[in-house]
Amino acid sequence: MTGKLYGLGLGPGDPELLTLKAHRILRSAPVIAWPAPDTGSSFARAIAAPHLPGGQTEIAIRVPMRTERFPARDVYDKASTLIAAHLDAGRDVAVLCEGDPFFYGSFMYLFERLAGRYKSEVVPGVSSMMAAASHAGRPLAARNDVLSVLPGPLPDEALTERLGQCDAAAIIKIGRHFGRLRALIDDLGLTDSAVYVERVSLEAERLMPLSQVPEDTAPYFSMILIYKGGEDWIHALPGSTP
Amino acid sequence: MTGKLYGLGLGPGDPELLTLKAHRILRSAPVIAWPAPDTGSSFARAIAAPHLPGGQTEIAIRVPMRTERFPARDVYDKASTLIAAHLDAGRDVAVLCEGDPFFYGSFMYLFERLAGRYKSEVVPGVSSMMAAASHAGRPLAARNDVLSVLPGPLPDEALTERLGQCDAAAIIKIGRHFGRLRALIDDLGLTDSAVYVERVSLEAERLMPLSQVPEDTAPYFSMILIYKGGEDWIHALPGSTP
Repeated sequence: MTGKLYGLGLGPGDPELLTLKAHRILRSAPVIAWPAPDTGSSFARAIAAPHLPGGQTEIAIRVPMRTERFPARDVYDKASTLIAAHLDAGRDVAVLCEGDPFFYGSFMYLFERLAGRYKSEVVPGVSSMMAAASHAGRPLAARNDVLSVLPGPLPDEALTERLGQCDAAAIIKIGRHFGRLRALIDDLGLTDSAVYVERVSLEAERLMPLSQVPEDTAPYFSMILIYKGGEDWIHALPGSTP
Repeated sequence: MTGKLYGLGLGPGDPELLTLKAHRILRSAPVIAWPAPDTGSSFARAIAAPHLPGGQTEIAIRVPMRTERFPARDVYDKASTLIAAHLDAGRDVAVLCEGDPFFYGSFMYLFERLAGRYKSEVVPGVSSMMAAASHAGRPLAARNDVLSVLPGPLPDEALTERLGQCDAAAIIKIGRHFGRLRALIDDLGLTDSAVYVERVSLEAERLMPLSQVPEDTAPYFSMILIYKGGEDWIHALPGSTP
C-alpha cells in the first residue's frame, strides 16, 4: 500500500481560513512538504503552523524566485524523489499550498511528476482573490459581469487589450511589476477604479485605493482589483486621504 | 449594541469544505438566513446542516428564479427588514452563501441594503470554480495564463470574443443556456478543450469531457471549464468513452 499525495489549499493567510478538510488532513499527515524561497521562511508553513500536531516529517522545497516560466526544474525533481520515497513507504504526504493549489499555484509541478504513479487528491482552498474582494467590501463580479484574472508579468499590450474588454479584473503576481502596472492602469484611465490589496487576511493586511499607495514597489503577495464603475465607493475606502 | 451581519461563504457543497472561520460563526450565530427557490430546499442550508447546533432562528429568503438583472427586489427588501430587526435587537445574523459570497453571489443584495447601517463581515469561501479544477485534476490557470470567468447568459458575440482571447475560461450560470453554449463552443473548435462539471464536491458530482455529456440540458449548479491545449488529458478523463 503506497501513501496518498495531497495538495492542500490553505487559504490566503489567516489560519482560520483553512477548510475543515485541509485541517483534518494536516492534523493526520505523517509527512508535510512546503515551498519556501532560497532563504527565509515559508508562507504556506506559517499558515499551517498553528494547526500542526507536531512530530510530522517535513520536506522543505526551496525554490529560487528568479526564472519565470520553468521555475527550478531540478528543485521539483528532487522534491518529487523525496516525496515518492515516503509514498512508496506507505506514508501520506500533504503538500502545503497558499490559497488554492490549482489557481496559479506551484503545486502543479509536483502533481505532474507524481499523480500518474500515486493516488492523489487536490483539496481546493480560498484564493487570495476571493478574500481580497471580501475585505474590499464589494463583489468582484456579479450578475453577467466578465471577470478577467491577469498575471502582472504579461506585456503592456496584452494587459491593455484585456483590461479594455472585461467588467472587472484581478491583476495578480504584481511584485516588481508594480510601477509599470500602475502607469499602465493610469494610462487606461482606470486608476480611480483600482483597489490595492497586500497580504490579505493577515495582521499586516493593507487595502486602499491604488491612487493612495505611497510606495513604488509592492510585495509578492499583493494584487490590484479593477472594478469598473466602482469609483465612488473606492474613493471612500478607509485608507484613502481626501 | 447592535448585532453583526455575516456573509458566510460555505464552499461548493461538501460540508467539509467550509472554512474553520465559517464553521465557528455558524456554530455561534443565533440567527441564520438562507436563500432558497420559490419552492424546494436551500442548497446553502444543506451545506450548513451538518454543522448547525440547533436552536437557531432561521430566515428563509425565497427568491423567484425568473428575472435576470434584478432578482426580486421586494424579496430582498423584506429579508433585509427581518434581518435588521434581529441586528437591532443585538443578535448576530449569519447569511449562508454557496461558494464565495462575493463571487457572483446574491449576498450582495442584502449587503448593499444593510452594511451601511450595521457592522458586517464577509467570510470568503471556496468557489465551485476552484473545486472544479481540483477535481478535474488540472490547474485552471498557471504561470502567465489569462483566465476569464464568463456568465453563460451572455450573448454569443460577447462569449466568442472573450473565448478567443483567453488561455482558460470558466463558463458559469449554465442551466438553460447549455444547448446554446455547447453549440457555440463547438463552432469555436473548443469542444475537445472543454470539461463539464456538475454539482462539484457533492455525492452526485459528475465531471467529464463536454463531448461526452449525453443530455441537452444542465442543472443550475454546473459549469464548463475551457482548457486551451488540454485536449489530450481531457480525452483521457474518466467518464469519457472511446
